[in-house]
Amino acid sequence: MQFRNFKMVGYVVYGRGSFDQLDEILSPQRKGDAPMVFLLDHFFKGKALEGRIPLRGKDRLVSADVTYEPKTTQVDQLAKELKDAYGTVSGVIGIGGGSTMDLAKAVGLMMNNPGSSADYQGWDLVKNPGVYKAGIPTISGTGAEVSRTTVLTGPTRKLGMNSDFTPFDQIVLDPVLAEGVPVNQRFYTGMDCYIHCIESLQGTYLNEFSKSYGEKALALCQEVFLHKDHWDAQSDDQLMMASYAGGMSIAYSQVGVAHAVSYGLSYLLGTKHGIGNCIVFNHLEEFYPEGVREFKKMVDKNKIDIPQGICKGLTDEQFDTMINVSLGMKPLWENALGKDWEKQMTRDRLRALYEKL
Amino acid sequence: MQFRNFKMVGYVVYGRGSFDQLDEILSPQRKGDAPMVFLLDHFFKGKALEGRIPLRGKDRLVSADVTYEPKTTQVDQLAKELKDAYGTVSGVIGIGGGSTMDLAKAVGLMMNNPGSSADYQGWDLVKNPGVYKAGIPTISGTGAEVSRTTVLTGPTRKLGMNSDFTPFDQIVLDPVLAEGVPVNQRFYTGMDCYIHCIESLQGTYLNEFSKSYGEKALALCQEVFLHKDHWDAQSDDQLMMASYAGGMSIAYSQVGVAHAVSYGLSYLLGTKHGIGNCIVFNHLEEFYPEGVREFKKMVDKNKIDIPQGICKGLTDEQFDTMINVSLGMKPLWENALGKDWEKQMTRDRLRALYEKL
Repeated sequence: MQFRNFKMVGYVVYGRGSFDQLDEILSPQRKGDAPMVFLLDHFFKGKALEGRIPLRGKDRLVSADVTYEPKTTQVDQLAKELKDAYGTVSGVIGIGGGSTMDLAKAVGLMMNNPGSSADYQGWDLVKNPGVYKAGIPTISGTGAEVSRTTVLTGPTRKLGMNSDFTPFDQIVLDPVLAEGVPVNQRFYTGMDCYIHCIESLQGTYLNEFSKSYGEKALALCQEVFLHKDHWDAQSDDQLMMASYAGGMSIAYSQVGVAHAVSYGLSYLLGTKHGIGNCIVFNHLEEFYPEGVREFKKMVDKNKIDIPQGICKGLTDEQFDTMINVSLGMKPLWENALGKDWEKQMTRDRLRALYEKL
Repeated sequence: MQFRNFKMVGYVVYGRGSFDQLDEILSPQRKGDAPMVFLLDHFFKGKALEGRIPLRGKDRLVSADVTYEPKTTQVDQLAKELKDAYGTVSGVIGIGGGSTMDLAKAVGLMMNNPGSSADYQGWDLVKNPGVYKAGIPTISGTGAEVSRTTVLTGPTRKLGMNSDFTPFDQIVLDPVLAEGVPVNQRFYTGMDCYIHCIESLQGTYLNEFSKSYGEKALALCQEVFLHKDHWDAQSDDQLMMASYAGGMSIAYSQVGVAHAVSYGLSYLLGTKHGIGNCIVFNHLEEFYPEGVREFKKMVDKNKIDIPQGICKGLTDEQFDTMINVSLGMKPLWENALGKDWEKQMTRDRLRALYEKL
């Protein structure tokens, strides 16, 4: 099809305190005594949120270790454990950041699909619908709450299970959950949304659907990180909507240079997505002059540390690995630089860019 | 639940020419030889669009007479005719404006629900999911493409079948379809979106979800009707997104004075929704000073005729009927004027307002 037929999440509830409706929302989704499985970002271990999860019957609470972004092995192991213990489950609920939500989507799919999640990394390879899946972000900016993918590191590549079965059946957007996020982390993750918007709005792939969502997401990021003089409850409300709108804008747009370059970092050094994009974007004046100027203002204003010198001491071979991974992201480069991107982005130019980081 | 759990449409495709994907989109939804039923706004009878509908096998093309807004009797008759002829159908596809889309939603529901559609006018009364339903707007502004209701005139009231089963499974947003709309009609329907935004953004019911959608819809309306100096293809693109965003913003907001007053006109005089809202809004300076000022600029700039004097010669009894209908819309008045709206909007004040129209 020329235009993507975009699968939407099934239900959205948005509101301060809407997390308290979770029990009522899940109740009609329970199938006999099959448990609901809650994957909770390990950040919340021992915190108040843990005690507010509406566990019933055989329900299972799993602390999701998202120190590293999710791996196919982690997905497969968790799905196997759940199948062995319960046969099937009523649903999988991811409560946390992008990694936790992606983990929940992937485990939900693997409950009903044979083999390894690595078999389904790619586009439209998933065979069967998963079990019921719900996503509850506790930090804003990734857009994972509305995306049709789940980014996984597999044996040979970092790539999502991108399919119409992947989006959540339900998302719960409760900005109160984002209140305790550390300032640096909130910024890095918020910038995932901001940088996406800059890259997609300046890209060559775009239509009015994605433009209108991208513009709104961008305006909300500017409002909370630049125009307002302090962080308040409304800032959390707005950043949660920015993340949602930024995620929706992906339907008909593509990211660009920052993402292409940061995939190399992530592959070689394990740099997490949000901070990796910030490290790269900080040096992209030549590609996104206005966006980078504004980004630096936001960094200053919010007193954020952007790590420097992370590529110091790498070998030629390591630089080559990053360059290979990055140049493999063809649609991103084409979106950013046009059809003749290969003439513009030579290996030497990219090496020089990595050396600056 | 304190916060509405908002049911989204299943799939969205947006793009200039995306209508040509309809055959491919419907194909996996076909159930054996049960037909797809296309309800096409009678405006297109004999026009090129009629010939582009992907009819296969026993598919049925119905010219939908939307001279008047849909009635429960019309819904019931069409559903009965389809049941008698085919037993069941694969789906119902509404191609047209808000009335045609609402008709398609209602007929799709009545294929699987007993009795009359009048039995289901209200909130969450529909018992069973309908057949597959798709909506394809050919004019922008109503938001019917994403709403969870279908406004019907029944034996005793004008009220929708408001339920989680009501939203479309698929919408196709192809701005090219809106190209032939007459200028006045395009304006009246576009103002359905604009006026909704003014009413909801100034209302007392609102949260950041609806605010962000409402602000985007408003900005797009201002762009096409006020800031641009001519109408072009991008204007159609933008107005179609304004309608979508305006419809989404309904999730957590409410309309206000213009809608409450125009329901009275519609009930007594059969005034259609778009033009009715314009006739009323034109006289609401005291409630929405900035919005009405801007509306008048748009009327001038686009050289639109807003009918005047439509209440001349009505009897006291007729005015009373309109006043009763209007004052019955309690949530709209409360949203517009606050908890003590009854003190502010007396019968005399409302009568004076109707006399001005």
